Amino acid sequence: MQRRDFLKKAGAGGIALGAGLAASGSASAKAEYKWKMVTTWPKNFPGLGTGANNLARLITEMSGGRIHVKVYGAKELVPAFEVFDAVSRGTAEMGHGASYYWKGKVPAAQFFAAMPFGMNAQEFNGWIYHGGGQALWDEVYAPFGVMGMPGGNTGVQMGGWFNKEINSLADMKGLKMRIPGLGGEVLKRLGGTPVNLPGGELYTALTSGTIDATEWVGPYNDLAFGLYKAAKYYYYPGFHEPGTCLEAIVNRKAYEALPKDLQSIVINAAKVANQDMLAEFTARNPGALKQLVDDHGADLRRYPDDVVAQMRKVSAEVVADVAKQDALSKKVYDAYSNFLTSSRVFTDISELAYLKARDE
Amino acid sequence: MQRRDFLKKAGAGGIALGAGLAASGSASAKAEYKWKMVTTWPKNFPGLGTGANNLARLITEMSGGRIHVKVYGAKELVPAFEVFDAVSRGTAEMGHGASYYWKGKVPAAQFFAAMPFGMNAQEFNGWIYHGGGQALWDEVYAPFGVMGMPGGNTGVQMGGWFNKEINSLADMKGLKMRIPGLGGEVLKRLGGTPVNLPGGELYTALTSGTIDATEWVGPYNDLAFGLYKAAKYYYYPGFHEPGTCLEAIVNRKAYEALPKDLQSIVINAAKVANQDMLAEFTARNPGALKQLVDDHGADLRRYPDDVVAQMRKVSAEVVADVAKQDALSKKVYDAYSNFLTSSRVFTDISELAYLKARDE
Repeated sequence: MQRRDFLKKAGAGGIALGAGLAASGSASAKAEYKWKMVTTWPKNFPGLGTGANNLARLITEMSGGRIHVKVYGAKELVPAFEVFDAVSRGTAEMGHGASYYWKGKVPAAQFFAAMPFGMNAQEFNGWIYHGGGQALWDEVYAPFGVMGMPGGNTGVQMGGWFNKEINSLADMKGLKMRIPGLGGEVLKRLGGTPVNLPGGELYTALTSGTIDATEWVGPYNDLAFGLYKAAKYYYYPGFHEPGTCLEAIVNRKAYEALPKDLQSIVINAAKVANQDMLAEFTARNPGALKQLVDDHGADLRRYPDDVVAQMRKVSAEVVADVAKQDALSKKVYDAYSNFLTSSRVFTDISELAYLKARDE
Repeated sequence: MQRRDFLKKAGAGGIALGAGLAASGSASAKAEYKWKMVTTWPKNFPGLGTGANNLARLITEMSGGRIHVKVYGAKELVPAFEVFDAVSRGTAEMGHGASYYWKGKVPAAQFFAAMPFGMNAQEFNGWIYHGGGQALWDEVYAPFGVMGMPGGNTGVQMGGWFNKEINSLADMKGLKMRIPGLGGEVLKRLGGTPVNLPGGELYTALTSGTIDATEWVGPYNDLAFGLYKAAKYYYYPGFHEPGTCLEAIVNRKAYEALPKDLQSIVINAAKVANQDMLAEFTARNPGALKQLVDDHGADLRRYPDDVVAQMRKVSAEVVADVAKQDALSKKVYDAYSNFLTSSRVFTDISELAYLKARDE
């Protein structure tokens, strides 16, 4: 077949498939670099999955289509928890997820997602972009041929949905709660039973009594999930994830094969996606919270003082235990802790003092 | 002269001027678009001027040099307060400054910089990027052929340097303080005398007793300015600028003359510069604060409760008065206030509740 005929037929086929697909096909066809982005999120999942879409769109748009990034939801190309390996192998050039998912492989990775009673989003960005954090992240992922970087942030998450009132520390004993990761370890040391369940099973587990409580993300995602129908009390603050960083990962060889301008576009698109996700959650959460409380009767509660105090004490122990896993975890823990110790003093007289003054 | 000869001579001249200039000259020579960025900052001023440099660098780098942006400090091409007009006229394609400098020309512009007891940086980004703020900014600047957008953020600023202890509201009466804009109007209604002085005159004015107090930015900039040598007490929080947005402005015709990919690069470079400046201040302020207190004897004080309460009450009145200036100011004020009223409820149970819990 002549090239011209081939193009004609391909064009006709594209049109038959609908204008949207035709446009996407043509953008992809002229791309010098066709990249796949595998993600740990259901395709188009609000905030997180759409954040990954946003990152892909930014790269394609700023590069004038020279890189075309196609996004795959969890299980479309690889299962959620194989995203890191897929990017490491080069099956996909990029991924979007959260670094604490890879703790079995790289314990030190956890510091680049969220730490109980750790940094908030603003402090984390300070640490990563101007406080030495990015160099450590590079070091942690280097053995896997993967580059990790912030690709979104949820801000302070909510404590979660409870079918039991928490009036004191005693109520945490025996509590069966879906809370994965380090937050789960904190719950365990408070006498509760952490359970790990995928998001899709939370509703049923709550209504059947398999669990008494579950954390998820925040009002915007929690409303979409309908968790208010299965539990009454909505606790805050989410001490366990006070500004969760979602990560963009890139296969280093694929990155190094790009010309300098496209390398800069990939790195900076991730920075834009990072800020943009936090801005979206910040804009969407307030309205969702209002709906949850006003329309759906969510009973908003603050964790009692003795629970907060004990969570804070135990969280410090749990985070310090991560540092004991290997030398690299110790190195990242020390850097994280030093930055936080220093930045807390300023946060207390700036953000905290201001928000208190505004709220009084 | 032949074109080849001209290039040869230009090249030789470039080398004679030094490698740095030669590289910059050559990047500019091949640029399809040579843009000027005028700024309201002294060239290379830490945080603010370097933030403008960062924005220029990002555009040049992501575009592979197709746009070359040359940055001018205040007075190099136009005086600081003529930056907006210069971009409006097309004398420069871009500018970097702060929207409250243009209040004499466009009162509504003030809402896109900082409001006393207004939004913090995270809320402001939520409003601009996902809460309808950007559309209003576009509307406010449209008559001038200028596009405005966030190009940096300082975070919560400090209250300022005082040569008098502030123990109660009574101590604000008669206080001569350098505090421009709406913060100055708040001071006036508290019985003080607001003074406006350029940054370079603050030190002398404090030591001579011309003023009793001055606000500036925060520890990182205040340390560089040496204000601790001229005043003893360092008050917080900076109620008057709780997350000042610095702005990038672009001449709309120049923007529209760009192909789509370069348009996207300009818009997204400003987004990166916005996040990056806040990250830099967040990383630099804590160490600077420690130096100010430990090495230079700054006496860190919180404004007394009655001062905070009255500042909050009066700030609401001062901001509401901006809305009375014209219909557009009223429209932006209503949108700003609605977003803040809604987002405060969530900020209180997320960021504020978390920072309180961490700090107890």
